[in-house]
Amino acid sequence: MLPKIVDGATRLLGIVGDPVAQVRSPPLWSALFRYNNINAICVPFHVHPPDFSRFVDGLRMARNVLGLFVTIPHKLAAARYADALTPRARRVGTANLLRPLPDGGWEGDMLDGFGFVAALRAKDQRIEGRHAIVVGAGGVGSAIAFALAEAGVASVAIADIDTDRAEALSFRILRLARVKSLVSKAAAEGFDLIVNASPMGMREEDPSPVDLSGLAADAIVGDVVISRELTPLLRAARARGCHVQEGSEMTDHQGAAMAKFLGLETGDWSPAAIRAAMGE
Amino acid sequence: MLPKIVDGATRLLGIVGDPVAQVRSPPLWSALFRYNNINAICVPFHVHPPDFSRFVDGLRMARNVLGLFVTIPHKLAAARYADALTPRARRVGTANLLRPLPDGGWEGDMLDGFGFVAALRAKDQRIEGRHAIVVGAGGVGSAIAFALAEAGVASVAIADIDTDRAEALSFRILRLARVKSLVSKAAAEGFDLIVNASPMGMREEDPSPVDLSGLAADAIVGDVVISRELTPLLRAARARGCHVQEGSEMTDHQGAAMAKFLGLETGDWSPAAIRAAMGE
Repeated sequence: MLPKIVDGATRLLGIVGDPVAQVRSPPLWSALFRYNNINAICVPFHVHPPDFSRFVDGLRMARNVLGLFVTIPHKLAAARYADALTPRARRVGTANLLRPLPDGGWEGDMLDGFGFVAALRAKDQRIEGRHAIVVGAGGVGSAIAFALAEAGVASVAIADIDTDRAEALSFRILRLARVKSLVSKAAAEGFDLIVNASPMGMREEDPSPVDLSGLAADAIVGDVVISRELTPLLRAARARGCHVQEGSEMTDHQGAAMAKFLGLETGDWSPAAIRAAMGE
Repeated sequence: MLPKIVDGATRLLGIVGDPVAQVRSPPLWSALFRYNNINAICVPFHVHPPDFSRFVDGLRMARNVLGLFVTIPHKLAAARYADALTPRARRVGTANLLRPLPDGGWEGDMLDGFGFVAALRAKDQRIEGRHAIVVGAGGVGSAIAFALAEAGVASVAIADIDTDRAEALSFRILRLARVKSLVSKAAAEGFDLIVNASPMGMREEDPSPVDLSGLAADAIVGDVVISRELTPLLRAARARGCHVQEGSEMTDHQGAAMAKFLGLETGDWSPAAIRAAMGE
């Protein structure tokens, strides 16, 4: 007999993206719910950008929806659409998670930066005093830049092929977090915390997002790209002796904060629980 | 390791109702999809009546939605909302299934009557020439009354505590199917095909929907109520030697027609496949 995995009383946690076929959340969170004995499931919704607001407007009408993960390219739209935002989502201007408000509408949160920092701390990596460069000034790059500034780095530099976007993010960080920020080329030299927050590395044949010629062995190199094996960037960094952090570590360290935001009062949502639930 | 039952490429078949916790479709269709090696899942959506149109309007924006089952109390709203209806859904005025149209919007179908008749035929029960009474003139009762008229009964009588509703349905059947119809009390005497299409019997303590004092042994008694065991009505009818048909038989015999309407070109959606998929 097949396992009875969903019934009429099952609650739903959605993930909306375009494309969405590649996302990890449905198997991961569905396994976590089962691990924690909660009758809920995570399901994908493939929604094109012009349809985003109409989709979330409708989904809000379903009373058994716990929340909605938001991924590329909807994170900016989600923050604009939300009726309320947590302070960190408001500051970054993007949201990667929506939860239904008791009286209607949605509240947005943005946990990518939190997860990135939490994953470094879980490995006892020092963040304070480092000179960071974040490559990619989009939603996830912005979230990480703000979170690093809050976590006490000495400086944050932003690099983006869209220099206007890099400059705009730099000024916002300067104003809010009082750290030295500058627009820079994507090169590791002079930095000891290097973050790829661009999509470069999703395909094996992508050029490196960062010039690693000046990479020091005591630098930390993190990547937001999620892949089965280490990305080429992280492989090169590990070869130099650097501490490397994978994209999945950033997401896995958001679990507990996400569960709390979604109002899940019981259960274990830690990276260890994720590994156990996924049978890894 | 837990089974990987849903991933980013999973397609969704929804069921919308209020309440929805009691519905069988999510485990049944999720098991059928797995049985047929199709990466899809059936999930419930709990939507209140005033929110129905806004919900389906939004759900249409998700490109990985195969369709939407519609159950109580939304079957009438679904037919009104749909951009197109199959002839049988238009005739009955209700829909129990919506599919996305290629250029946007939804098309509705109504298969309860089809399923009721198909289940009788699968058991080699003669329908032609019988005198039928349908108790309950709502969405499912209307669908069954039309389907019985089409299948060649000699007459259809409609009984409903709302006599205006019973009369209105009788006149519509008269006009379309040219069978003798009349408003009647819910009594078995004089009929040899008795159908309960009211919710009476969902709870064990409900009074009988039909006065069975004149029930003949050669009558067929069908119930649309879905319960784990035979409803009190069907237990009484079986005790008299009648052929009885359960609510689940009506729904199980809709599987193949529903799959076809949803564009599922491969797979076995028969009652036998349902039993095998559910491990029964």
